Amino acid sequence: MPIPLPTFDDVLAAAARIAPHAHVTPVLRSHALDDLAGCRLHFKAEPLQRAGAFKFRGACNAVWALEEADAARGVATHSSGNHGAALALAARTRGIPCHVVVPEGANAAKLASIERYGATVHPCPPTIAAREDTAEQVRQRTGATLVHPYADRQVIAGQGTAALELFNANGPLDAVFAPVGGGGLISGTAIAAAAIAPACRVYGAEPEGAADTARSLAAGERQVDFVPDTLCDGLRGALGEPNFELLRQHRVDVFTVADADTVAAMRLLWQCLKLLVEPSSAIALAALLQQRSRFVGLSVGIVLSGGNVDVDALPWGRA
Amino acid sequence: MPIPLPTFDDVLAAAARIAPHAHVTPVLRSHALDDLAGCRLHFKAEPLQRAGAFKFRGACNAVWALEEADAARGVATHSSGNHGAALALAARTRGIPCHVVVPEGANAAKLASIERYGATVHPCPPTIAAREDTAEQVRQRTGATLVHPYADRQVIAGQGTAALELFNANGPLDAVFAPVGGGGLISGTAIAAAAIAPACRVYGAEPEGAADTARSLAAGERQVDFVPDTLCDGLRGALGEPNFELLRQHRVDVFTVADADTVAAMRLLWQCLKLLVEPSSAIALAALLQQRSRFVGLSVGIVLSGGNVDVDALPWGRA
Repeated sequence: MPIPLPTFDDVLAAAARIAPHAHVTPVLRSHALDDLAGCRLHFKAEPLQRAGAFKFRGACNAVWALEEADAARGVATHSSGNHGAALALAARTRGIPCHVVVPEGANAAKLASIERYGATVHPCPPTIAAREDTAEQVRQRTGATLVHPYADRQVIAGQGTAALELFNANGPLDAVFAPVGGGGLISGTAIAAAAIAPACRVYGAEPEGAADTARSLAAGERQVDFVPDTLCDGLRGALGEPNFELLRQHRVDVFTVADADTVAAMRLLWQCLKLLVEPSSAIALAALLQQRSRFVGLSVGIVLSGGNVDVDALPWGRA
Repeated sequence: MPIPLPTFDDVLAAAARIAPHAHVTPVLRSHALDDLAGCRLHFKAEPLQRAGAFKFRGACNAVWALEEADAARGVATHSSGNHGAALALAARTRGIPCHVVVPEGANAAKLASIERYGATVHPCPPTIAAREDTAEQVRQRTGATLVHPYADRQVIAGQGTAALELFNANGPLDAVFAPVGGGGLISGTAIAAAAIAPACRVYGAEPEGAADTARSLAAGERQVDFVPDTLCDGLRGALGEPNFELLRQHRVDVFTVADADTVAAMRLLWQCLKLLVEPSSAIALAALLQQRSRFVGLSVGIVLSGGNVDVDALPWGRA
């Protein structure tokens, strides 16, 4: 059964609901990156959001939108990482239980955060079917409300608050780029842009190795049968059904990016912004640089989605 | 000849002078680090300053405080990196020449920034005497004004604007920590704290392998004869004369920190703040954690001084 699609009013309600708990993240500028891109870049710094990613916005909105009786039974989800940590922290802000189904092989830093925020972790095999099955079992056993990482009205509305803040801080931009995994962030961004900055075009960026969104939009129907092959661990999920509908309605274009270009963009961001962005964030800058000539002289927003790099994998012994 | 010591009025004048050019950097919070430290931490994020460090504040103030005729002949300095890059960028904001004497073996990322900002680089052997001699030769040849990295009234006043912003954003804190190399940042911080938040204690953090400030304060006179041995490449300089006087006047205490503790703190900051701080910044958090029991329950400011990590040294091939 299709979920009701979120509207801009839902985004505004989300902004009010999460305000006591979420950070208003800064918008960062870099002259060096402006010179490189040939346009004026405005980076919405979601690595500085609580739990290190925009995901806290949607999770927090979903948790606080629950009726009291539902909330008491807790929340559950499956997640390769950022959404799980975000939901764990959101549940803690309301003092309710949280269950997170985590596929084996998930990013260690993200797993550690989920546990640190006090959620119960349920491991499962690393397939989308296994994730969904395990989450359903947890739901039946506990009565927890499933909060889907992206195919959820309140989650999408919450993710839209990042773009809302970006437009409020910077005025109507000519274009805004965001990464695309399941499509929560990009569809929330599209809703906010359509309402506040109708002339602003919204572009998604997804890995070549998980390019189901570009294929889905080209085909006119969701193409969810694929095996992701990308180091962007936050973007391996399949585009959600409501997300697909919203991207179609708002005529969002999606660019596909090779992982090597994403890593190069990540390196630029670390160097110029001093922000520890993860690959799944850097892909949005990589997409812009790939399409550089189309954006010369414009004002462009880039939603840097998260910063949950596995710091333990860095060469500390050599520092 | 001793230079006139800067006052709080100089800090206020600096704030007005640099406002058109410098960023007001955000103050970041982390619940995880608060829990670890047992106090409320307020991180002044100078890695997000232009040129990636607080140094731009002092350099910019010095450049824009020059009379027109002096400015036209340019500025010069010696620097292991951040001050050089900052002065190069500050000179570019005024459209005047800049000469930077750089010791061999300096951090590659910092050297690249100096060149990118259009300064002329003059290499020299890696001793303090060689740096000063080469800078003096450049000055005589070009007529440029030497802008010392820290023993300079306008530079110290400019560095004080970081603490000024921190207090303005957060109210009077109980304590504030900053790294100590030559003492520009810590002495500017002490001036600002004494004027705005007289109950706030100011603490410096310096590497065990360059602990001349702690020794100087203990002995009651500057102890500048030492060979630095620390990975904190921004903190290898000797404490300046005016800086020493200001630290004595303001009763600043300095803690010495082992490099291993600094690296551990850097890792925490990367992980929890998602900010690419360099070791010379992380030392301030390391000092607080070392002295943890003295600060339990307090509100503490930490000036994170810069983020010019040599990104090329990270394992990109493995990312």
